[in-house]
Amino acid sequence: MGTLDVLASRLPEGAVTTDAEMLRERAADSWALGLLRRARGDELPMPAAVVFPSSTEDVAAVLAWASQTGTPVIPRGGGSGVCGGAAAGTGSVVVDLSRMNKITGIDLVSRVVHVQAGVRGDQLEDALARYGLTVGHYPQSIAISTVAGWIAASSAGQASARFGAIEDVLVGLTAVLPQGEILRCRPVPRSAAGPDLRRLVVGSEGTLAVVTEAVLACRARPAGWEWLAFGFPSFAALADGLREAVRAESGAAIIRGYDQTDAALSFGPLGHSGGCVAILGFPSDVPALAERRSQAAEVLRQAGASAELGSGYGEHWWRHRNDAVALYRQIMGPDRVLGPGAVVDTIEVAGLWSAVPPLYARIRSALEPWCEATGCHLSHLYPSGASLYFTFLIRAADDRAAEAQYLTAWDEAMRACAAAGGTLTHHHGVGQLKSPFLAAELGRAGVQVLSRIKDALDPAGIMNRRALLP
Amino acid sequence: MGTLDVLASRLPEGAVTTDAEMLRERAADSWALGLLRRARGDELPMPAAVVFPSSTEDVAAVLAWASQTGTPVIPRGGGSGVCGGAAAGTGSVVVDLSRMNKITGIDLVSRVVHVQAGVRGDQLEDALARYGLTVGHYPQSIAISTVAGWIAASSAGQASARFGAIEDVLVGLTAVLPQGEILRCRPVPRSAAGPDLRRLVVGSEGTLAVVTEAVLACRARPAGWEWLAFGFPSFAALADGLREAVRAESGAAIIRGYDQTDAALSFGPLGHSGGCVAILGFPSDVPALAERRSQAAEVLRQAGASAELGSGYGEHWWRHRNDAVALYRQIMGPDRVLGPGAVVDTIEVAGLWSAVPPLYARIRSALEPWCEATGCHLSHLYPSGASLYFTFLIRAADDRAAEAQYLTAWDEAMRACAAAGGTLTHHHGVGQLKSPFLAAELGRAGVQVLSRIKDALDPAGIMNRRALLP
Repeated sequence: MGTLDVLASRLPEGAVTTDAEMLRERAADSWALGLLRRARGDELPMPAAVVFPSSTEDVAAVLAWASQTGTPVIPRGGGSGVCGGAAAGTGSVVVDLSRMNKITGIDLVSRVVHVQAGVRGDQLEDALARYGLTVGHYPQSIAISTVAGWIAASSAGQASARFGAIEDVLVGLTAVLPQGEILRCRPVPRSAAGPDLRRLVVGSEGTLAVVTEAVLACRARPAGWEWLAFGFPSFAALADGLREAVRAESGAAIIRGYDQTDAALSFGPLGHSGGCVAILGFPSDVPALAERRSQAAEVLRQAGASAELGSGYGEHWWRHRNDAVALYRQIMGPDRVLGPGAVVDTIEVAGLWSAVPPLYARIRSALEPWCEATGCHLSHLYPSGASLYFTFLIRAADDRAAEAQYLTAWDEAMRACAAAGGTLTHHHGVGQLKSPFLAAELGRAGVQVLSRIKDALDPAGIMNRRALLP
Repeated sequence: MGTLDVLASRLPEGAVTTDAEMLRERAADSWALGLLRRARGDELPMPAAVVFPSSTEDVAAVLAWASQTGTPVIPRGGGSGVCGGAAAGTGSVVVDLSRMNKITGIDLVSRVVHVQAGVRGDQLEDALARYGLTVGHYPQSIAISTVAGWIAASSAGQASARFGAIEDVLVGLTAVLPQGEILRCRPVPRSAAGPDLRRLVVGSEGTLAVVTEAVLACRARPAGWEWLAFGFPSFAALADGLREAVRAESGAAIIRGYDQTDAALSFGPLGHSGGCVAILGFPSDVPALAERRSQAAEVLRQAGASAELGSGYGEHWWRHRNDAVALYRQIMGPDRVLGPGAVVDTIEVAGLWSAVPPLYARIRSALEPWCEATGCHLSHLYPSGASLYFTFLIRAADDRAAEAQYLTAWDEAMRACAAAGGTLTHHHGVGQLKSPFLAAELGRAGVQVLSRIKDALDPAGIMNRRALLP
C-alpha cells in the first residue's frame, strides 16, 4: 500500500483525491505571479494529492500521517490569498478545508458563533443575518475566502474601524498542530493565562497549525448605512482629516481616504473631477448618530475638506466594493483582458500617523518607474496610525519582462516601506511574496524567534515550508 | 573572579548588588502566600544578587551572562504581582527594571509615547497629562506597577471598556531574549507580518524575554468624569443590564457591577442598604454624551434596575478605587491588622456571557466553605463576555492552617472555573499560584505548545522557571 493509500484508509471515503484537475486548481492561490506564470503556460509545482477533511479529527489524522511520512502539507481555505501563501509545492498534500463549512452553533446570549473554519465569509454572514447579527468582518474577498484563511493570514475587513480585525473577533479556536495534536483554546473574551495561543496562530499562514474550528464574536447587524464624503485638496490634508475623524469617535464603521489617482479610478463613474476623497460609512442605528455624524463632518472641514460630496460616493463604493476581485481575475486569469505583459497587484502596508506621509511618498516613488499607474487609499484607520493600500499596474513587453519588472517593483517598494518605518503588510500576510523582506522588518532576532517556534512545533518540517519564513 | 564579579564588570558601576536588605525586599512579590509566609517568619528563597540595568543593552549583557553561566533570572517590575510570578528562587539573579524609568519620547502626531519599561504607571500618566494625553491603562496597582509588568502579566485597567487592555495599547516593543539577543518590534498600529511577536511577550511572565522598552498608544485625556449608578435586585439582572449596556456603545469607559456582598463592602460608607450596584463612568467630553448616557440608563432600567443611585456612588468609587492596595498591605504585611490566620486575596476569571451565571454560582460555592466573606464584581466587560472579580477573606486559627485553607480554596475555585468554561485569569496572570491549573484550561496540547516555545527560546532554562508553566 502506498503512503497515500495509507492516508486514505484513515479518512472517510472520498476524502483523498489525485484527480489531475483538482490538483491543478489547487497548485496556485491568487498570487499575481502564480497567475502570470500559469497564464503564460509555465508548469506550476503540482501537489501529489488533495485531502478534503470533514472534521478536526480528520485533519489530525492527516497531519499525524504527514509528520510520520515527512510529507509537505499546504493548508488551504478559499485560495484567495494574494501572496502565494497557499501555493503548493511539488509532491505536497493540500489540506482543503472547503468541506468543513458548517456553522455548528450560535450562542445568542454571548453573541458568538461556532463554525468549522472552512466556512466562507458570505455563508457565515447569510446565516447570521437571520438572527440580526454580524461578525462584521468584511474583506473584499468575503465571497471567496474562509474563516480559516482569515485567521491564518491575519485578515482585516473593510469595517474594521467598528468591528476590529480578525484577532478582535476571534474568541475561541481549535487548530491541529503539525504532529496531529489538537489545540483547543476555549472561547473567552480575554485571558491572561499565558501568551495568547489564539494570537500565535493568527498570521502563522499554515506554518504552525491548521485552523479547523473557531468561535467568533458577533455584533448587532447594521440596519442600513449612512454615508459622508468630502473632497480634499491634498493627500496630506486628507490624512490629517481622517486622523482626527477616527479620534473623534464618530461611530463610523467604514473610513477610507483616496488619493487623487485612486479617487479618479474609483469615482470616475460618478463624474469625479479630481482631488482626494474621504468616505465615512455609519451603521444607521449607531447611538446618537446625527450628532456624531455632524461632529465628524466638522472635524473634516476643519482639517481642510474642500467640498461635501454627498452620499452617492459612499453608496457607489458600497455597491462596487468587491468588484476588484472580478477585475483582478479578468486581468490575471485566462482571459487576460489587458493582454500579456500586464500585471495588477496591491501593496498594503501600515505605519504610525507620523510615518504615513513618508510611506506614501517613498512607496509611490519606488513604484513609479516600474508601473503605468499607482493609486493609494488609506484603508484601515486607528488612533495611532493607518494602512496605505497601493494598487499598481505594470504593462511590460511580454510576460517574461512583466515578471522581472514585478519583482523589482516589489523589492523597491518593500525597501521604501522599511526605510519609512512601516510594516510590510497590514492584512494580506507575507506568503512567498514578502518572505525575503521579513528580516528587514523583524530583525534577525525576530526571524529567529519565528524560526525557533516553527522548528519546535513542526520538527518534521512539513508545514507550508515556502510561506512566511525566509 | 566569581561569576557575579564577571557580571558586574560588564555593567555600569553600582548595577549589581548583594546587599542583604535589597535581596530580602526582592525575594517576594505581592502574592498573599509569600506575604503570609514572610509574616509568620518563614525563610523565603533568597536571590544571589539584584541587578539594576539602565538600558536594553545592560539587560542583554545580563541575560547573555546568565545563559552562559546557567544562572536563573527573575525579571522584576514593581513587584506588585499577586500570583508569585516575580518571587525569586534561591541563587537567582533578580533583574530589577526600576532604574529604567525614562520616558524617551512622545510622538504627538501619532499620539504614542516611547518609554523604558520600568516606568511606573503614575509617572507615565503624570508625564502625559502635560500634553492632555493618557494611555488609559489604570490598574488598581498603577502607583506601584510598571509598563514591563503590565506587558509581562497581561494587565488590564479599570477603564478597559474604552482604552482596551495592555495588548490594545502596545504598538511597539523591545525585549531581550534569554540568550541576550534584542528583539525590536517596530511601532505600527497593526501588522500581518507573521504571528504578532508583541502578543507573544504579553502574558509570558518573564519566561521568554525581559521587556525593556515599549511604545504605547495614547488618547485624549478625559477632561473629567460623569457617573451613573443603578441598584439591581439580583446578580442575574445586574449581569443582563450590564451586558446590554456594553453593547449599547454608551461611551462609558468604566463599567462595573457589584453583587450584594461587594456592594455592601464598597458602598457601605454611603449608607448603601443592600442590593447589587452598577456603576458607569463617562469621560465628560465623550461625543454626544448626554444622549448616549440616557440611552444607557434606559437600557439598564429595561433590564430591571430598581433605582437610580445618583452620581455619588461613582464619585466614591473613583476616589477610593485604589484603596484596596493599602488595605491588602495592612492585612498581609507586618502590621497584620486582622491578626495571624487572616488571608485576603482576589480571584479574577472571565468567560462568555452565557458562562457568567455558572461562573458566579460555582466559584462562590467553591469558596464559601473556606472563607469568611466573598464578594464579587464584574470588572471588565465585553460584548461577548465579562470578567468576574472575587474578593475573599480567610480567617483560620493560625497561619499554618490559613495556608492550607488558602490552597484548598484556590484549588476548589479553579476547578469550578474550568468546569464552568471560564479562563482562570483575566488580568492578574498565572505566576506560581495558578500554574498547577493551567493544563485544565489549555489542555495538554496548549501546555506543550508553551513548553516547546519556552525550550526553543530559552535552551539554558534560565528564565523565571517557577512561573506560568506547570
